[in-house]
Amino acid sequence: MRTSSRGAVDSFIVMDVMEAARAAEAEGRDIVRMEVGQPGTPAPAAARAALARAMEAGPLGYTVAMGLPELRARIARLYADWYGLELDPARVVVTAGASAGFILAFLAMFDAGERVGIADPGYPSYRNILRGLDLVPERIEGTLANRFQPTPADVHPGLAGLLVASPANPTGSMLDRPALAALVEACAAHDVAFISDEIYHGIQFAGRPVTALEVSDEAVIINSFSKYFSMTGWRLGWMVVPEGLIRQVERLAQNLFICPTHASQVAALAALDATDELEANAAVYAANRALIVEALPKAGFLKIAPPDGAFYAYAELPEGMEDSRAFCARLLAEAGVAATPGLDFDPVRGHRTVRFSYAGPTDRVEEGLRRIAAFMAGES
Amino acid sequence: MRTSSRGAVDSFIVMDVMEAARAAEAEGRDIVRMEVGQPGTPAPAAARAALARAMEAGPLGYTVAMGLPELRARIARLYADWYGLELDPARVVVTAGASAGFILAFLAMFDAGERVGIADPGYPSYRNILRGLDLVPERIEGTLANRFQPTPADVHPGLAGLLVASPANPTGSMLDRPALAALVEACAAHDVAFISDEIYHGIQFAGRPVTALEVSDEAVIINSFSKYFSMTGWRLGWMVVPEGLIRQVERLAQNLFICPTHASQVAALAALDATDELEANAAVYAANRALIVEALPKAGFLKIAPPDGAFYAYAELPEGMEDSRAFCARLLAEAGVAATPGLDFDPVRGHRTVRFSYAGPTDRVEEGLRRIAAFMAGES
Repeated sequence: MRTSSRGAVDSFIVMDVMEAARAAEAEGRDIVRMEVGQPGTPAPAAARAALARAMEAGPLGYTVAMGLPELRARIARLYADWYGLELDPARVVVTAGASAGFILAFLAMFDAGERVGIADPGYPSYRNILRGLDLVPERIEGTLANRFQPTPADVHPGLAGLLVASPANPTGSMLDRPALAALVEACAAHDVAFISDEIYHGIQFAGRPVTALEVSDEAVIINSFSKYFSMTGWRLGWMVVPEGLIRQVERLAQNLFICPTHASQVAALAALDATDELEANAAVYAANRALIVEALPKAGFLKIAPPDGAFYAYAELPEGMEDSRAFCARLLAEAGVAATPGLDFDPVRGHRTVRFSYAGPTDRVEEGLRRIAAFMAGES
Repeated sequence: MRTSSRGAVDSFIVMDVMEAARAAEAEGRDIVRMEVGQPGTPAPAAARAALARAMEAGPLGYTVAMGLPELRARIARLYADWYGLELDPARVVVTAGASAGFILAFLAMFDAGERVGIADPGYPSYRNILRGLDLVPERIEGTLANRFQPTPADVHPGLAGLLVASPANPTGSMLDRPALAALVEACAAHDVAFISDEIYHGIQFAGRPVTALEVSDEAVIINSFSKYFSMTGWRLGWMVVPEGLIRQVERLAQNLFICPTHASQVAALAALDATDELEANAAVYAANRALIVEALPKAGFLKIAPPDGAFYAYAELPEGMEDSRAFCARLLAEAGVAATPGLDFDPVRGHRTVRFSYAGPTDRVEEGLRRIAAFMAGES
């Protein structure tokens, strides 16, 4: 049996927690799912209705690799609505989730052995996709002082790229416009490609997030229909790429993916106009956030990253607790709450941290917080 | 602007032809689409109905990375129905199309710089995905005498893998059981991983195709819901992997793809039971094949690969015609028939060949053949 060394990436721990939670549910247990970064809501009603109609109107065969032209045009219009930017739809690439966007960005820009900077804590698949594609993730240790984000001092000519997320996963922290501009400028000065993960845009509690497109036309933007648009399982996202990268990304997309799921593209096109429903979802996250930032400190979690956006609370374990993996296993087994050990997001310091997702319905978040409080009370 | 050298893969020409055909249609022209390898039929009615129900029953969020357990179990059962094999569902990996299956197989088994043998003519993305992932495609020149398939003599210890398709694209040719067993044996003797692309199983005109699983438990199988199950745009496929590879593939799938499209998984589960509708589709391909193998020689295409399965006719251009790309461009512009230049499938000899897909409805195939005959008459 041949196995590659580059394929020996880490497990994505949250997926294992998810599988454990699913197994517990299959045994009939009631589990509060605070482990997984996905809305409890379905795709918007208008999106589902549009797909139901399209399914009966004709075969949903391959689309062109870059995505349905009307969807690319509509996404371009989102940049006018959200940021006041004019964007050429030719620069929009519809992808099979942000996941495919990362694969395409990395393969289109970087050759084997090159280094890409990412902040820890961060989305674990960043480093695992990089490693799987023979790239070298360079760990940038985030601190509370810099909102767990990279700073211009972290940028150097030895990097081929820098990948930044704002709002970030797992912290929820955001970069403001001056901070983002300073990072983009530092990258330009050292010929470092700037990749901006903006998949949590639309879910924010501290002012509108800034897209890297506002400060540079050379940045590569990754976005997704999963979070604000409530379509995780539909595996649809998009990129905005500089003009000079369009054809390279298109050729890779043709060969690696053929096209994103047609049905998801139809649904996403309608989702882009479902503003009332989506804003109602966002209001739920805001309510959940208010509950969680009040409850967690009371339960003993005194150090929480600044939750500017997204739907996560990234918390340090109370003093004396040193094993987040064991903590999460016990929290699931004894309290029926699934949460993700920080090790997923920060291999060095994550044994001391846990990520709680508050993307579910408010009553479930309330129930989860009650169970967490009771569990922690039993621990102290 | 950074661009990588490994990302500089060839364009997937059929996608460009498809885009040209779409543009012609957008201008109001009637184009017979014989370029693209996809059924003209939608997903089975039962599949669409199942999805319509599921969309209203709950959010279609992330599934586990390997796919819905019930879908994996049902796919395992297909191996009993089709081949009389008992298969552990744990070895079934649901993927975002066969495309994701190739990416996962290559990354899980091969490190940068290793060589993988593929027959020419063959599916163009094989070599482009390999190159994009820093692997070296080793061209095996197919001949009519060996049905354009690799032979044991092509296998040597310098290969890390051999990738075989039966029925093949673009030729439609199949390997019988002795030929497949001999190849698998040669690979085992030289520690060469055997990858079997079986995405056209179910569409066959020369007896039942043999799965590599019938001759080896170490082969990696790639299959898809696109062709027999008529679900191209749904981007869903599966792999069967040896037990020793399951965990490596799972970790890569978690990180690279999170999961395949949930909606597509729901539809596919129902499609697996839509045998009557699918067999009716297959009967249409058989009828189309009969038309095309009669009409093409009359139009001047005297050398056609053995069309044992799939829904393609791979034909040499008549004597004196030397430029398949120009031929296809003119056929589209002047006759309103889209076909794919052989260059997509065989960079060395493909300037002399064309692939016609007969996956569409019979009346469109008839219309296409009429137009081709008239166009060829005008050429001679």
